[in-house]
Amino acid sequence: MDKVFQYIDEHAEQYLDWLVEACNQPSVSAQNLGMTEMKELVKRFLSKVGVESEEIETEKYPIIYGELDNQKERTLTFYNHYDVQPDDPIEEWLSDPFKADIRDGKVFARGVADNKGNLIARICAVHAYQQVYGELPINVKFIFEGEEEVGSPHLALFADKFPEKLKTDAIIWEGGTRGVEDKRLNVGLGVKGICYLELVCRGARTDLHSSEAAIIENPAWRLIWALNTLKDKEENILIDGFYDDIKPLSEKESEFIRSMHVDEERMKELYGIKAFLKNVTGDELKEVLTAEPTCTICGISSGYTGEGSKTVLPSVAKVKLDFRLVPNQTPERIAKLLREHLDKHGFEDIEIIQSHGIHPFNTDPEDMFVNVVLDSVAEVYDEKPVVLRNLAGSSPMYKMLKNTDIPAVQIGVANQQSNYHAPNENIFIDDYIQGIKVTSSVIKNFR
Amino acid sequence: MDKVFQYIDEHAEQYLDWLVEACNQPSVSAQNLGMTEMKELVKRFLSKVGVESEEIETEKYPIIYGELDNQKERTLTFYNHYDVQPDDPIEEWLSDPFKADIRDGKVFARGVADNKGNLIARICAVHAYQQVYGELPINVKFIFEGEEEVGSPHLALFADKFPEKLKTDAIIWEGGTRGVEDKRLNVGLGVKGICYLELVCRGARTDLHSSEAAIIENPAWRLIWALNTLKDKEENILIDGFYDDIKPLSEKESEFIRSMHVDEERMKELYGIKAFLKNVTGDELKEVLTAEPTCTICGISSGYTGEGSKTVLPSVAKVKLDFRLVPNQTPERIAKLLREHLDKHGFEDIEIIQSHGIHPFNTDPEDMFVNVVLDSVAEVYDEKPVVLRNLAGSSPMYKMLKNTDIPAVQIGVANQQSNYHAPNENIFIDDYIQGIKVTSSVIKNFR
Repeated sequence: MDKVFQYIDEHAEQYLDWLVEACNQPSVSAQNLGMTEMKELVKRFLSKVGVESEEIETEKYPIIYGELDNQKERTLTFYNHYDVQPDDPIEEWLSDPFKADIRDGKVFARGVADNKGNLIARICAVHAYQQVYGELPINVKFIFEGEEEVGSPHLALFADKFPEKLKTDAIIWEGGTRGVEDKRLNVGLGVKGICYLELVCRGARTDLHSSEAAIIENPAWRLIWALNTLKDKEENILIDGFYDDIKPLSEKESEFIRSMHVDEERMKELYGIKAFLKNVTGDELKEVLTAEPTCTICGISSGYTGEGSKTVLPSVAKVKLDFRLVPNQTPERIAKLLREHLDKHGFEDIEIIQSHGIHPFNTDPEDMFVNVVLDSVAEVYDEKPVVLRNLAGSSPMYKMLKNTDIPAVQIGVANQQSNYHAPNENIFIDDYIQGIKVTSSVIKNFR
Repeated sequence: MDKVFQYIDEHAEQYLDWLVEACNQPSVSAQNLGMTEMKELVKRFLSKVGVESEEIETEKYPIIYGELDNQKERTLTFYNHYDVQPDDPIEEWLSDPFKADIRDGKVFARGVADNKGNLIARICAVHAYQQVYGELPINVKFIFEGEEEVGSPHLALFADKFPEKLKTDAIIWEGGTRGVEDKRLNVGLGVKGICYLELVCRGARTDLHSSEAAIIENPAWRLIWALNTLKDKEENILIDGFYDDIKPLSEKESEFIRSMHVDEERMKELYGIKAFLKNVTGDELKEVLTAEPTCTICGISSGYTGEGSKTVLPSVAKVKLDFRLVPNQTPERIAKLLREHLDKHGFEDIEIIQSHGIHPFNTDPEDMFVNVVLDSVAEVYDEKPVVLRNLAGSSPMYKMLKNTDIPAVQIGVANQQSNYHAPNENIFIDDYIQGIKVTSSVIKNFR
C-alpha cells in the first residue's frame, strides 16, 4: 500500500483531533460568531504544513490565502470556506452543535460536513504527504473564504483583484458526497446557478377591512395572476427566451448522468410523495434533476397568515422566487427576461428585488484533471464513483473562476445524509479518513 | 321640543358617565379578559331601567337577556354585544384603550364605537323615556351577546332554543354610522354574508432544499394555479353557479344606493390609490360596494417569508379566502360550489377548511318599521339619512333572525372614522347624545 495511506491510517486519531478542534470553534458568518477565532485557527492549521498564510481583507471576513510554492510544474488549489451555517433550530440537536460529538462512527457538529471536514482533510493530506516524502510533487494553494454561507459577496472581487493568486492548473472544490445505501462517491464537475429574487406587488397604503375588496384592488390577486403567467401546470417556464441559452448535454455528460444512483422508492417514502414531478422516473429523472432549470416559489406571503380568520384586504403581496440555472444561463439575463415578461403581461407595477445571483459552472468532462481525480478515487474506494455533470444545488464556483478554463472538481468527506444546513450535521469518520487519502492521491497523481 | 329630548340634554353628563364606566371595563372575548365583570356591569345597567336580566348560558360567554313587558301591542328588541376587539397594536393608542379618554369632543376607548356606545345609548333612551313618562308605550327586549367579536358561535343556537324570547315586531341592530364630511346618518337594512375558508395544499412531508424542485412538486405553485382558476383579471368569479342565486336590487333599493355618499377623491387620497377597482366610479361604485359579492385573498403563506433569501421548497401552501355574499347567496352553497370547482379543475387534493359562514341579511325596504326609524331620525337630525340596502361588512343578523320576516334596522352612534377594530377607536359625544334621542323617538313612534 501507498506509504502515505499507511501514514494517514497510523495518524487517524491525530487527524480526527484536528477536525474536532476545528468544529469546536463556532464560526457563524451570518451571526458574526467566532469568526476572528476561527480565522486564527485556520492560520494555525496552515502553519502545520509550513504555509505562512495571509489575510485578504474584505468588508467582513477575510479570505485566508496560502501557498506552498515548491517550484514544481503544476499547481493545485484547494477552495474551502471556514464559516458555517447558524445552529438553529437548536432544540433539535442531540448534542452541542459546537462541541463535536463522536458516536456511531460519526462526528456530529455544525459545519463538520459543510465544510470543515473537507477543509481540514485537505490540510491533513498535504501534511501526511510531507511527513512521508518531505515535499509535495506539485505546488499547492489554499483559498479559504469566510463568507460562503452568506453568499460569497467578495469572492468575485478577490478573483478580479488577485489574478496571480488564482493562477493554478486545477482546483479541488468543496462539495461532493458519498451515497449511503449506494456507497459510491459522487464527484462533481459543477453546479447549477441561481437567480433569487423577490416580487413585490402593492395595493392600498395600509391593510383595509376586506369588505372594501369590492372596490379596492387586492395585490395578492395581482401577484397570483402574474405568477400564473410564469409557469404552467406542465411545469413549462413561460418567460420568452428562458430556455434559449441552455447548452445541450454532451454524450459523455449524458453517460455520467445515467450512471447516477437515485433510489426512487426510498426518496418517495422519505418525502412522503406518491410520484415525482410529471411522473418522471429512471434516466429522465436523473437528467431533469441535473440538467433542467427551475422556477421555484420559495416563499409567498400577503395579509393575515396567523391562526383562525381575519377579514383583511392586504396592502402588499410578496413572493420569493428561485430560478436554478444550467449552463449557459445567467442570472442577469434571467432577471432581465423576467422584467420584460411582467411588463408584457401588464404587471409593470410589480417590483423585482434581486436578492442574489450565481452563474452556473461546469468543468469540461474531457479535461485530464477529471481523470486524475477519478484515478485517485479508484485507489481508495472499491466502488467506481458517480460523476455528476453538475450538482442540483449551487456554489460560488463561477464567482472565482468566471470564464477561465481552470478545471474544478468537487470531492468531499460528507454523505447524502449529512444534514447539511440542518440539525445533527455529521460525517462518517471513515469517510473523513478516506477523503484525506483521496486528496493525497490527487497530489501524487497530478504531478 | 320633545320632553324626553329635553331630559336627555339635561342628563347628558350622567349618560356620558355611564358610557365611560362601560368602556373602562375591559371585555375582550378573544382573550377572555374582563368578561365576567362586564357581564355583571351590563346586568347592573339593565337594572337601572327595571329589567331583571337573565343569563343564557353558552359554552363561553352568556347572552344577557332582559325584557320590559308593558302589556303593550308592539315589541321592540335591541340587539347589541358587550364584548370588544383586542387592543393590539397597543403602541399605536394615544390613550389607555380601557380608560375612556375625552378629548376634542370625542370619547376614545376600545369598544366605544363597536358597540358599547350603542348598547348604553339604548338603555339610556329607555331610561329617559321612563323618567319622563313613567312607562314605555311598547314592550322592549334586550339581547346582549358576549361573543360577537369571535363570530357569534352560539347565537343561532339561542334563536333555535328560545323562540319566545325572539318574538318581536322589530329589531334595532348594532351598526349604522354617521358620515364625517357628509353628516348624514347611515341607516342600515342588512349586511352582506360571508364565507371564510382556508385552502391547504400539501407537497412533500417536510420543507426541502429548493434544488429538489426539479423533481418534487411545489404546493405553492399548485395553489397559485388553483387560485388563478377562481377569479380572472377582470374580477369575474369563475366558479360555476356562483352568481346564480343573487336577488336583483329592487327599484327602491337602487334608489337608496344612489343616495349614498362616497367621497371618492378623499378615499383615493386616504388609501393612496389612483383609481377604484375596474375604474368604477359614481353610482356604479356605490352599487358594487353594496350589492356585489367578492372573492378576496385575506392571507396567503408558504415557505420562507422572513427577511432575505432562503432556498427552500415548501411542503405546504395555505390561503385564506373571504367571500362576501349578497342576498340570496349562502355560505353553505358557496363552499359546496368551490369544492366542485376545485375537483373539476384537477385540484381534488386541495383541502378546504371552512372557518366561518354568515348568511347575508336584508330587511324589506318597504316594511313600515323602516319608515318608523326614518321618521325618528328626522326628528333629531337635520340631514335626511342615507339608507343602505346592506352594509358592505357582515354581522350575525341572519343567525338570529334566519328566514323570519322580522325587520331589523341598524342605527348607531359611531361614525365612518370611528376606527372600528383599530387603535384610537372613538365616537363623538354629540353623536352619542343624538343616538339616545333617536332611540327614544323610535320607542315613541313604534307604538
